[in-house]
Amino acid sequence: MITLWELGGKDGRRYSLFSWRTRMALRHKQLDFETVPVRMSDKAAIAFSGGKTVPIIKDDESVVRDSWKIAEHLEDRYPQAPTLFGGEIGHGVTQAFNVWVDRALVLPMLAVIVADVHERVDTADERYFRESMEKVLKTTLEDARKGRADAMARLARAQEPMQALLKRQPWICGAQPAYADYILFSVFQWARVMSPGDVLSSSEPLHAWRERLLDLHGGFARGVPTA
Amino acid sequence: MITLWELGGKDGRRYSLFSWRTRMALRHKQLDFETVPVRMSDKAAIAFSGGKTVPIIKDDESVVRDSWKIAEHLEDRYPQAPTLFGGEIGHGVTQAFNVWVDRALVLPMLAVIVADVHERVDTADERYFRESMEKVLKTTLEDARKGRADAMARLARAQEPMQALLKRQPWICGAQPAYADYILFSVFQWARVMSPGDVLSSSEPLHAWRERLLDLHGGFARGVPTA
Repeated sequence: MITLWELGGKDGRRYSLFSWRTRMALRHKQLDFETVPVRMSDKAAIAFSGGKTVPIIKDDESVVRDSWKIAEHLEDRYPQAPTLFGGEIGHGVTQAFNVWVDRALVLPMLAVIVADVHERVDTADERYFRESMEKVLKTTLEDARKGRADAMARLARAQEPMQALLKRQPWICGAQPAYADYILFSVFQWARVMSPGDVLSSSEPLHAWRERLLDLHGGFARGVPTA
Repeated sequence: MITLWELGGKDGRRYSLFSWRTRMALRHKQLDFETVPVRMSDKAAIAFSGGKTVPIIKDDESVVRDSWKIAEHLEDRYPQAPTLFGGEIGHGVTQAFNVWVDRALVLPMLAVIVADVHERVDTADERYFRESMEKVLKTTLEDARKGRADAMARLARAQEPMQALLKRQPWICGAQPAYADYILFSVFQWARVMSPGDVLSSSEPLHAWRERLLDLHGGFARGVPTA
């Protein structure tokens, strides 16, 4: 059995963006797993991992942390299950995609949803979340909420290449979904779980793609507590 | 024998960004080819292709245009030669990378180099180039030159994810170069062939990566007429 440590919010919400990459990768590999919710401010709970962030998995005796390293571990350890990367070049270009999403999309999305996320984190995390996010965004949560329209415009610009791509092929990975799809999906699932205002409108290619992802693996990502 | 139609500038410069993707893909596939320079304003010269842009290749009886379609053609037709995509997932994620480069990097680079490019296109193309590029950039070439420092800052922001990636792995495609490397390289080779001020400084990961690309295939991309 595999165990996944991830952030737990109010009312059973599982909102760690990076952990959603791991969740989808585990389902892609057809692996059963149990999850342990942790609070963002509770570093003692995950000190066993040697790090300060989730996701972390324990797979038999292996403890692996960092979503990218976990995906590599799963691909390596379960080569018979459906592939996440499709070989060396797929692995390389997927890492390029991973870095692009992390550097170009995560912060614009955070700016849009941060005040909504704050309302839904574990009560014990509220102060920690506010302090760390206000430092990252260099603004208060209240000002971030006022600036939502501008943040939405920046997010729309950042995600525009993927809108264009998804007019050409149904998945980031081509004809079938794989790990690069889960990388991008994690950003939208984070928003979906924690923010009541949908960041995508139904006419957008990304919207239809997200619907397909929500249907995957027996509707796994659709059937969770959301905003 | 394969023939490649591409843009020809002053003094033998071959400066079509998209044609550099095709040039590198042909060398990657270990294929010989001859090139035909065309002027940007001479649409009659390439009317046989059914389109108005280069690159175009003729491979036996097949005429293929558009750098992405050419790469797909080469991968399909020469499966025994080194792979450009590494399979279906690699193909899919490489198309995502292709769209990102085209939508996020090409225009920032154009804003930096456009006045230099104008001085090096075929004399017969100068007016056509000026009119079309001033429309794309919504500014005059003279104002673009004055705004070079701002444009460089925008370019640096756009390319930052790839600087970060190249600290983790030597090529966009991982341990070995493949088509996604040529996609990104084309943008820098365009600048190198047409603009005397290097857009990269020697301390940047992208600089070292570009040097490795210039060494590939017997120094093929290094040994051409440049600015």
